[in-house]
Amino acid sequence: MALSRPSVPGNLFRPSAFAGEAVPFTVTAFREGHDIIGVHLRLLSPSGAESLHSLSALHDGFDRWRVQVAPLEEGVWTFWFEAFGDDFATWEHAADLKIAAGVDAPLMREMGARLLAAAGAEKDRPADERAALKAAAASLRDESVPDAGALDIVRDPAIAAYFHARPAQSLLTPGPRQELLVERARAGVGAWYEFFPRSEGAGRRKDGTVKSGTFRTAKGRLPGVAAMGFDVLYLPPIHPIGEINRKGPNNTLTTKPGDPGSPWAIGSAAGGHDTVHPDLGTLADFRAFVRAAAEEGLEVALDFALQAAPDHPWVAEHPEWFTTLPDGSIAYAENPPKKYQDIYPINFDNDPEGIRAEALRIVRHWIAQGVKIFRVDNPHTKPLQFWEWLISTVNAEHPDVVFLAEAFTRPAPLQGLAQGGFQQSYSYFTWRNTKAELEDFFGWISDDTADFMRPNLFVNTPDILTEYLQYGGRPAYKIRAALAATAGASYGVYAGYELIENVARPGSEENIDNEKYEYKFRDWDAVAASGATIAPYLTRLNEIRRAHPALRQLRGLTIHWSDDDAILVYVKHLPASLSETGHSDTIIIVANVDPHSMRQTTVHIDSSVFGIPPGEDYRVEDLITGESWTWNQDNYVRLDAFVEPVHILHVKETR
Amino acid sequence: MALSRPSVPGNLFRPSAFAGEAVPFTVTAFREGHDIIGVHLRLLSPSGAESLHSLSALHDGFDRWRVQVAPLEEGVWTFWFEAFGDDFATWEHAADLKIAAGVDAPLMREMGARLLAAAGAEKDRPADERAALKAAAASLRDESVPDAGALDIVRDPAIAAYFHARPAQSLLTPGPRQELLVERARAGVGAWYEFFPRSEGAGRRKDGTVKSGTFRTAKGRLPGVAAMGFDVLYLPPIHPIGEINRKGPNNTLTTKPGDPGSPWAIGSAAGGHDTVHPDLGTLADFRAFVRAAAEEGLEVALDFALQAAPDHPWVAEHPEWFTTLPDGSIAYAENPPKKYQDIYPINFDNDPEGIRAEALRIVRHWIAQGVKIFRVDNPHTKPLQFWEWLISTVNAEHPDVVFLAEAFTRPAPLQGLAQGGFQQSYSYFTWRNTKAELEDFFGWISDDTADFMRPNLFVNTPDILTEYLQYGGRPAYKIRAALAATAGASYGVYAGYELIENVARPGSEENIDNEKYEYKFRDWDAVAASGATIAPYLTRLNEIRRAHPALRQLRGLTIHWSDDDAILVYVKHLPASLSETGHSDTIIIVANVDPHSMRQTTVHIDSSVFGIPPGEDYRVEDLITGESWTWNQDNYVRLDAFVEPVHILHVKETR
Repeated sequence: MALSRPSVPGNLFRPSAFAGEAVPFTVTAFREGHDIIGVHLRLLSPSGAESLHSLSALHDGFDRWRVQVAPLEEGVWTFWFEAFGDDFATWEHAADLKIAAGVDAPLMREMGARLLAAAGAEKDRPADERAALKAAAASLRDESVPDAGALDIVRDPAIAAYFHARPAQSLLTPGPRQELLVERARAGVGAWYEFFPRSEGAGRRKDGTVKSGTFRTAKGRLPGVAAMGFDVLYLPPIHPIGEINRKGPNNTLTTKPGDPGSPWAIGSAAGGHDTVHPDLGTLADFRAFVRAAAEEGLEVALDFALQAAPDHPWVAEHPEWFTTLPDGSIAYAENPPKKYQDIYPINFDNDPEGIRAEALRIVRHWIAQGVKIFRVDNPHTKPLQFWEWLISTVNAEHPDVVFLAEAFTRPAPLQGLAQGGFQQSYSYFTWRNTKAELEDFFGWISDDTADFMRPNLFVNTPDILTEYLQYGGRPAYKIRAALAATAGASYGVYAGYELIENVARPGSEENIDNEKYEYKFRDWDAVAASGATIAPYLTRLNEIRRAHPALRQLRGLTIHWSDDDAILVYVKHLPASLSETGHSDTIIIVANVDPHSMRQTTVHIDSSVFGIPPGEDYRVEDLITGESWTWNQDNYVRLDAFVEPVHILHVKETR
Repeated sequence: MALSRPSVPGNLFRPSAFAGEAVPFTVTAFREGHDIIGVHLRLLSPSGAESLHSLSALHDGFDRWRVQVAPLEEGVWTFWFEAFGDDFATWEHAADLKIAAGVDAPLMREMGARLLAAAGAEKDRPADERAALKAAAASLRDESVPDAGALDIVRDPAIAAYFHARPAQSLLTPGPRQELLVERARAGVGAWYEFFPRSEGAGRRKDGTVKSGTFRTAKGRLPGVAAMGFDVLYLPPIHPIGEINRKGPNNTLTTKPGDPGSPWAIGSAAGGHDTVHPDLGTLADFRAFVRAAAEEGLEVALDFALQAAPDHPWVAEHPEWFTTLPDGSIAYAENPPKKYQDIYPINFDNDPEGIRAEALRIVRHWIAQGVKIFRVDNPHTKPLQFWEWLISTVNAEHPDVVFLAEAFTRPAPLQGLAQGGFQQSYSYFTWRNTKAELEDFFGWISDDTADFMRPNLFVNTPDILTEYLQYGGRPAYKIRAALAATAGASYGVYAGYELIENVARPGSEENIDNEKYEYKFRDWDAVAASGATIAPYLTRLNEIRRAHPALRQLRGLTIHWSDDDAILVYVKHLPASLSETGHSDTIIIVANVDPHSMRQTTVHIDSSVFGIPPGEDYRVEDLITGESWTWNQDNYVRLDAFVEPVHILHVKETR
C-alpha cells in the first residue's frame, strides 16, 4: 500500500491527472498514544494559488485519511500533507466522557476555557466567532453554570465547526512536497472514432480498379462521425506505403496491381514519415481536412509508427538506424520463425541521438499541421527511455499534445510506458468479457493504476475482433459499447463496428479482408436507411456521456452486487462539490454481459456511495429507454440481451 | 507492488534481515521488444566481499525476477540489480526455431559462430571452456556440418551452462544501490519464556505474609526453563515499585499491606529505572542471575517501560517530563473516563533532549549489567522518532542489542515501529485462531511484512488470556504452542501456560488473580510429577525447532489445502543451498485448530514447493509421535484434538 496518493509505485515518476478529474488524495497518518490528530492537504497550483483541504479519517483500521479534489488548472501542481495534534478534538472527546461521568469536571472545564479563550483571541477568526468563543470560555469558568451547561458547550456543533475550519493545532508535521501533473481534459476524456481515409470515398472504376479515397472525399464522412457524438478522429498512418514486399489482402505475401498495402509499412520513393501519401492528396489537403474536422467538433489524431518499409528514404540515408545482419542485409521485423517482410524495425542503439532528432522533427512537423494527438504504434518494442525523452521534450514545447500508447503487452511494460509519460494507453478491455473479469478490470483502472494510467477502452481495432464479438451478434456489440462508454473516461470505436462487421479470418482474432490491406466500401446512407447499424445506439451513448460528468471521470466507480453471474452492476458518481455543474451526478449501469440470454435477477445497491442513506427510496431513469422506477437497496431487474442488454440509470437528485 | 524487494513501503526506511535468514531478492525487469534479458543481483557484504547471484524469471506475467540469498555477516549490506540483454539466449531462441524451420539457417549459424567465438576468446573463461566454444563456433561455420548438427550445438546444455555462468551481456543496466541491515540471529529467531522473578521461590510465612522470591531463589528455576529448550528469559520490570496509589489484586484501587503492586508502576523512594527492587536483591545479585542464566544457555531480556509511579524520583527531579494539569497536578495515564492512578506517562515534548539522554543512560546501564535484549512496554504511546533515535544510537554502540516492541496496536503504528528500528514486534497472533485467520496471518508475516517486521508469536502474556484458551482446554494450549513454535521464527510463552492456567477474571481477557498484582506460588516439581503440565510438549517443540532450520526461518512458509474448515496446513521449507547444514529441510504442519473435535479429512500438498515433483511419493515422519507414512499429493489425515491435535511432519530427503 502506498503511504500516500496520488503516487506512482516506486516514486520514480510523477503522478498525473486531467483537468477536472476528481482526484483522491490519501495518506497514512497517526501519532503515538490516544490524542486525536487532524490532517490537511495543501495544494499549490501551477500559477501559485495555494489552497487547504481537510482530510477525513477513513476509520478503516489502517489510519488512512482522504479528501477528493478536482484540479482544473493545467500544469505541475505541488502538494503536501500536514498532520497535527487536534487539541480541540482531544479535549472535546475527553471532556464529553469525563464531565458526563463526573470525573475531573472542574479540570476539564478549565482546560476547555483556556483552549476556547485562546482561539477567541486569534485575529484571523471573524469577530462574531471570537465573541462566541470568549463567551463559551467564560461560561466554562462560571461556577454558576452547572456541569450540564458545560457539557452543552462541549457538544455545541457551532463551536466544533469553528475548530473544524481553524483547528487548534499542535506539533504540526508537514510531509514531503510532491508533484502532480495536470494535463488537458482530452488527455483523459474522449470518445474516439477510427477510420481509414483511403476508404472514405473510395470507389470501384468500371475497369474494376479502385479509386482511392482522399482527404477531400473523406471530409464527406466527418459530419456523420460528428453526428454520432465522437470527439476524436484517429487516422492510421497517412504516409506513402512501401512498394517492396508490400502485403496483399489478408496479409498475404503476394500483391496484385492496385493493392494498397498496409499503411503501417511506411515510406517509399514518394517520401517517409513527414509526407502525405500521394493517393490521399497533399499536405494542404490534410491541413484542410484537420480544419474541416475541427469545424465539426472533431480533433484529428495521427498514427506515429516508428518503422520503415524497405524503400523508406531512411534506409538509404541512414542504414545505421536499422540492424544489419552478418550477411549484409537489413533485419526485417520478426517473431521467430515468422517474418514481416514489409517492415524494418528501428535499431535505437546505433545512433540514438540521430533517431531522437528525427522523431522529434516528425512530431513537430505534424504539430505544425495542426495535429495535437498521436496514437503511437507498438511503443513497447521501442526503448522506454526514448519515449520518456520524446514526450517530455514535446510536452515542454506543447503541453497540450497527447500521446496514446498502443501497448498491448504485459502489465509491467504497459504501466511503465504510462508512468514514462504516455497520456493514454490501450488496455486489456477487449479481452475482459465476463462479469468477474470486468469487475476486476474496472476496479483496477479506476483505482489501482489511476494515478498514472488512463486506459482508452477501444471496443475493436483493425487487428482485434474478439471471439465475444464474432459470436455475440448485435447484442454483444451494444454491450461492449455501453461498457466502454460508461466505465472509463475515454473509449474508442473502429469504423465498421456500428455495422456489426463480425466475420473473422478463420482461426484469427481479426476481421476477414482486413482493411489494413485493402479498401472498404461502406455505404453509410444505405445502412442507416436499412437499420442494419447501431450508429443510433452509439449516438445515444455519446449524448449520455456529454450530459453526465460522472461518465467523464476515470475514478468514482464502485462495483455493486447482483445475484446473477452475468449481470454486472457498477456506479459512477461525482459529488456536487467536484462537479463543474454544481450538482452531483450518479449513474447506475446494469449490464447483462451474456449476449445470448434474457436474465432476471435482484440487484443490490449500496446507495451510501452516492449519498442516499441505505433504506431510502430514490428514482432512477433509464437513459436508453426513458423508463423510470423507484429503487431502493434490492431491485428487480430483467435484461433481455436481444432487446436492451444494458440499463444506464440516472439517479435523480433528491435534495 | 514494490518494484524490488527487500524494501520498506515508501522507501523511508532500510529493510532488514537476521543472520542466516533466507531472503528473497525480487525485482521487476523488462526491456522493449522480444530480445531476452538476464538479471543479476550484486551483493556487497559489510566487510566488502562482493558476490553475484543470477535471478530466475518467475514467468508470472508481471516480469518479476527472483533469487534467494541467506546473508550471514552482520552489518549493513549493499545490493543492486543489473539487467542486461542476454545475447546468447536471444540467439539460442531464434536459432532453435529458425534452423529447425529451415529459415535463415546460414545467417543463424554465422551469428552463433560470432557469439561463441567471441566468448571463446574471453580470458576469464577456463581453458577447456574456451576450447569448446571455439570448436563449436568452427562447427557452426563448417559447411560440411549439416543444419541438424548446428541445431545440436544450439541445444547443447554444456554451452548453455557456459553462458549461464558468464552471460554474453549487452546494454548492461544497473539499478540503484540499496541497503539491507543484517542483524544477529537472535534478532529474528528464538523461543522466549517469561517469568516474574518475585514469584520464583516466593513463599508464605507462618503469619500469612509472603516472602518475595529473589534473584537468588529465582536462579533455581533456570534449569527448568532451560530444560524446556527456551533461548530467552524475559523478566517484567525488576525496579522498585511505587507506593503511592499502588494497585491491589485484580487491579483494585485498594491494597493490603504486603501487596507487591504492578512491576510496571516503576519507581519509589528506593529508586527508579536504574535500580533493582530491594525485594529482589542487589544489582550484583542481578548480574549473578544473568550469568547463571547464560550458563544454562538462556539470554535474559529486560522490560523497558518508560513511565513512572507517582513516587518515582523523576517526578520530583524532573516534573517537566510529565504533563502538569491546570490544577497543578500531574496527569495520570488514562483512557477517558478510566484512569491508571499508579502510573504517570512521560510527556516527550517538554524536554525531549533530557528524556532522550535519560533513556539512553538507563539502557546503557543495563547493557553494562549484561543485558542485550529489551522488551519495550507500550512503545506506540511514545513518539516514533524517539524510538528511531534511541534504537539507532544504541545499535551504533552495540549492534547486538535487540528491542522487542509490545505494540498491540493498529497496523500502521505497529509497522511504523518495526520500520523505525524495532528488531521484533508482538503481533496479532493471539487473536488469530480460525483456519482462515491463520492462513491470512501466516501469509502476511512470512511475506508481506517480512522485509522489516519480525513477529514474536507469544501465545499468552500476563494481560492476554484469549477466549480460545479460556474455553479450549489442554488441546487449545497444545495447538497454539505448536502453531507459534513452527509458523514464526520467534515465539514466546508466559509462565503458567504449561499448567493450562485458563481461568479468567470474569468478563476480561486476562487471568484471574493476575500475577501483575500478586505473587504466584507454582510447585513445578509437583505438577511435573502429576502430569498436569504440557511442559514435555513445549520441550519437544523446542527440540524440533533446534533440529530443523526451516522452523528457524520467518520466510519459506506456504499454505496448502485441506478439505476441512478446521484443518490448517502449511509447509516450512529451506532449500539446501541456503541451509548451514547443506541439506534441505522441509516440515509439513497439519493442525486441527478446533480444540473440541476429532477431524478426518484429505490434505492436498503441492510438493513442488519443496522440490518433489507432483505425483511422486515421499516419506514423512511425525516428529511428535514418531509415526511415519508415505505421502503424495492427496493424503488422509485424522487429528483428534484430545490426543494429538497437530502433525509436525518431517519430509525425508529423497536424494
